[in-house]
Amino acid sequence: MMQKTLIHGFALLTCITISSMLHAQNQRPERPNIILFLVDDMGWTDTSVPFGDEPAPNNRVYDTPNMQRLASKGVRFSDAYAQSVCTPTRVSLVTGMNSARHRVTNWTNSGTNQPTDAPYPRFNWPDWNYNGLATEPGQTNTAVATPLPSLLRKAGYYTAIVGKGHFAPYGVPASNPENIGFIESVASDATGRPRSYLGTDNFGNSVPKTFDRGVRGLEAYHGQDIFLSEALTLEAQKAMDKALDLNTPFFLYFSHYAVHTPIMADNRFYQKYLDRGLDSTEAKYASLVEGMDKSLGDVMDYLDVRHISDNTIILFMSDNGGLSLNPPRGGAPFKHNYPLKSGKGAVYEGGIRVPMIAYWPGVTQPGSIARQYIQAEDFFPTILEIARVTDYTTQQRIDGVSFVPSLKASTAYDSSRTLLWHFPSNWGQGLGTLQKYFPVMRIEDVGFGPTTAVRRGDWKLIYFYGTGHVELYNLRHDIGEAQNLANAHPDRVQELLAEMSRKLQEKDAQFPISAQTGKVVRPKLP
Amino acid sequence: MMQKTLIHGFALLTCITISSMLHAQNQRPERPNIILFLVDDMGWTDTSVPFGDEPAPNNRVYDTPNMQRLASKGVRFSDAYAQSVCTPTRVSLVTGMNSARHRVTNWTNSGTNQPTDAPYPRFNWPDWNYNGLATEPGQTNTAVATPLPSLLRKAGYYTAIVGKGHFAPYGVPASNPENIGFIESVASDATGRPRSYLGTDNFGNSVPKTFDRGVRGLEAYHGQDIFLSEALTLEAQKAMDKALDLNTPFFLYFSHYAVHTPIMADNRFYQKYLDRGLDSTEAKYASLVEGMDKSLGDVMDYLDVRHISDNTIILFMSDNGGLSLNPPRGGAPFKHNYPLKSGKGAVYEGGIRVPMIAYWPGVTQPGSIARQYIQAEDFFPTILEIARVTDYTTQQRIDGVSFVPSLKASTAYDSSRTLLWHFPSNWGQGLGTLQKYFPVMRIEDVGFGPTTAVRRGDWKLIYFYGTGHVELYNLRHDIGEAQNLANAHPDRVQELLAEMSRKLQEKDAQFPISAQTGKVVRPKLP
Repeated sequence: MMQKTLIHGFALLTCITISSMLHAQNQRPERPNIILFLVDDMGWTDTSVPFGDEPAPNNRVYDTPNMQRLASKGVRFSDAYAQSVCTPTRVSLVTGMNSARHRVTNWTNSGTNQPTDAPYPRFNWPDWNYNGLATEPGQTNTAVATPLPSLLRKAGYYTAIVGKGHFAPYGVPASNPENIGFIESVASDATGRPRSYLGTDNFGNSVPKTFDRGVRGLEAYHGQDIFLSEALTLEAQKAMDKALDLNTPFFLYFSHYAVHTPIMADNRFYQKYLDRGLDSTEAKYASLVEGMDKSLGDVMDYLDVRHISDNTIILFMSDNGGLSLNPPRGGAPFKHNYPLKSGKGAVYEGGIRVPMIAYWPGVTQPGSIARQYIQAEDFFPTILEIARVTDYTTQQRIDGVSFVPSLKASTAYDSSRTLLWHFPSNWGQGLGTLQKYFPVMRIEDVGFGPTTAVRRGDWKLIYFYGTGHVELYNLRHDIGEAQNLANAHPDRVQELLAEMSRKLQEKDAQFPISAQTGKVVRPKLP
Repeated sequence: MMQKTLIHGFALLTCITISSMLHAQNQRPERPNIILFLVDDMGWTDTSVPFGDEPAPNNRVYDTPNMQRLASKGVRFSDAYAQSVCTPTRVSLVTGMNSARHRVTNWTNSGTNQPTDAPYPRFNWPDWNYNGLATEPGQTNTAVATPLPSLLRKAGYYTAIVGKGHFAPYGVPASNPENIGFIESVASDATGRPRSYLGTDNFGNSVPKTFDRGVRGLEAYHGQDIFLSEALTLEAQKAMDKALDLNTPFFLYFSHYAVHTPIMADNRFYQKYLDRGLDSTEAKYASLVEGMDKSLGDVMDYLDVRHISDNTIILFMSDNGGLSLNPPRGGAPFKHNYPLKSGKGAVYEGGIRVPMIAYWPGVTQPGSIARQYIQAEDFFPTILEIARVTDYTTQQRIDGVSFVPSLKASTAYDSSRTLLWHFPSNWGQGLGTLQKYFPVMRIEDVGFGPTTAVRRGDWKLIYFYGTGHVELYNLRHDIGEAQNLANAHPDRVQELLAEMSRKLQEKDAQFPISAQTGKVVRPKLP
């Protein structure tokens, strides 16, 4: 009897062991697929999905039925933030670092050692990381980090990037995304914009040129009547095909060049917006938006057809606020993101607040809204958590905080967190518009120039290095940043300024340099 | 008690079921990796590994220590065959079809609809598949087939090609190997040769050109002092890295551009061969060979370092016989493959017999020699058998026969099999050399011009369409094809000619066309 019990026990133990092993085996294919659907320069209101408490006028201008479809299944984030220009956001996404820490504080050029800062009276700029991202030390002026795709790849993910990379200039390994952990890289390099969206233009490659900014790697579509957003969608589907054949989970970093300049008509949608009364440039812009939206729909359809919708998470995001200059936009400058103030390149909400939707089947509540304020670097720990990658080490310290709690319950809200935007530079792109339309304005009036901002709870404090003044806004009551409450709330200003200083010190941030004294200039009240 | 037994039985059943499932799960990672290490234009004696019964003079000229290392672990095939030029072999490798069936009977140009046949008196050429390989009907003059990489990919293999593709001209989907089932494709397109082997020449891309023949996709090495064979090796290692991260088995089609023209010095090895007394061109050629051999060694080292040597099969092969023209080679023309007769483009052994080594850890007997005659299309069923892919369907009929029996026992020998080389065309490349050196010879004397040949057992019969004569050789006693035994063995000639006709009919072969009558010309005795 004793004998029998032992055998019994052994059999049971064996069963459990095998069962556990089987479970471990099974876990791998069960890991979810993750799609980061990244749009370029898309503003917070450039969509028929309202991200604010009430619809913005723009929400009636743009048709994005597939964003509506995604929002109806998932959760939209009303207060999602990027940096005000593109490379800082993109480096944050794949490193989990705030830009004050990674020091890629402005957009990177396509060649090495070419800082892109515009001049500003009485200031020089720090020696920031204008050579972008690197995975190991050795190249000057790079942010050295262990990138997200590498970690996912080592965890067995098929990692693919389709579309805009812009992690580093040509000549730095990270200009080729395969060097930061992507198994597959399509049409992705140092280029920050396409020279043309048209297959009939060979996407800008018709004219040979050193450091060509034509989109590379899409030769199969050259000469065809196909829009870039469509070609990238077909390539994204091919990348997913591969992962499905390999029976591995995938991480697809699907990074549209749309809706960045050059503003060109996507003829599938252009006429509709002309008919709607938009001027020709704005109609082109709207067609870029809807072409991108169609791509989102095609991706969702693909997931349905391949029966992987239930196991695929989609994260929709833009890399900075909407461009609001004229030219290249039509219409009134700095008003394109209304009710948000200003646009790309600015520290105001129009420059940094972006559309964001997350759909995690079975987890996110259909049609919900999360008010948690989050930032680009939060995607890093979030995606790793979704992928169940827990055992990893990185060279860099991670600033991002997972927003998985907000995915699980959209009402989750942590008001103790402080977000940071640090821009010790000047974005030159807007100066012409500014001088043309607002000859008597300061560039600070549209949120340009060297700035640092923090947000905690509903409060946002901005420090302007050029003028030395601060602005304080309560975003809950004043999303348009019209009422500067700094004088009315001196204690809150002091408190947030101290928090700003702590954050900057903790991240070992760089600062603008006084041309007169040669010393760095830190945020402080006069 | 009854109850108990039932529970017992159920527990046992559960254990077995789970165990079987576990086994099924485990099988996948356990599938072997397969490397097809393909060299371009490498002759049978261009190595220090003797493939004949006794060493050839060349075996003392070339240093290929890593081929020796591979041969000492595996089995070398003394009688391995390709077609006499490159695209026919490459299409056979990935389709399992004999070239008489796939009808890509000559090399393909980089542009569509550009047959490469040289003229020949009194003959026109059939409308062969000069547009190469296709995976579905629709493009004229293509061989439609289900390619090997697709089947492996669908079976969960990470399929990568690094180096020369040359499956079809630009404009045909298969010119991009990702369209025939390769998940990854590096430096691989319609190009059949590199414009330069030097990184300092940007591998020939310095000069922009339509249908550029510079090697594409290696921009990261442009401007560097690196030889193409080395750059490809680094890329091959990266491809294997990816499969290891994904924990999937891989099929690496590693296809060197070496040792094809342009014959350029690989400076890591060049001086040694000059010192050895070779003329400068032949020293360059030898350096190309040894640079390729170093790559083989680097791959084997990589497998050791990554602890996958024991589960990785290496198949080493050349795509046709060694080039034996002067120029571009130095030395006496048509003698470079001695003791074999003639070279690339010829139906004689110098044009079709190639170096081949297979290493299957735990299966092949170290240092063994297999005398089984095999042909390029045999790789298709062999590789699928090694990969344990048994449940597959193809659009095409497979001519190849698995040589796994010869891998398991090198003495296995099937003398009943008939190999077929069908070349209803003329290879133009050699005509200048021929007229310069041998003004009174017929092109048939070096095995050029339209021909069909068969081999069964030790016997080889060649039919020359231009002259209407046949030649019969016993390869065991006369590997140099010096003694035409056709007159001495009329019965064997009849028998092999009948077999040739049956094979051609069964494969629905095309034939040269009489310019006079417009009718096809089939092999027959006068």
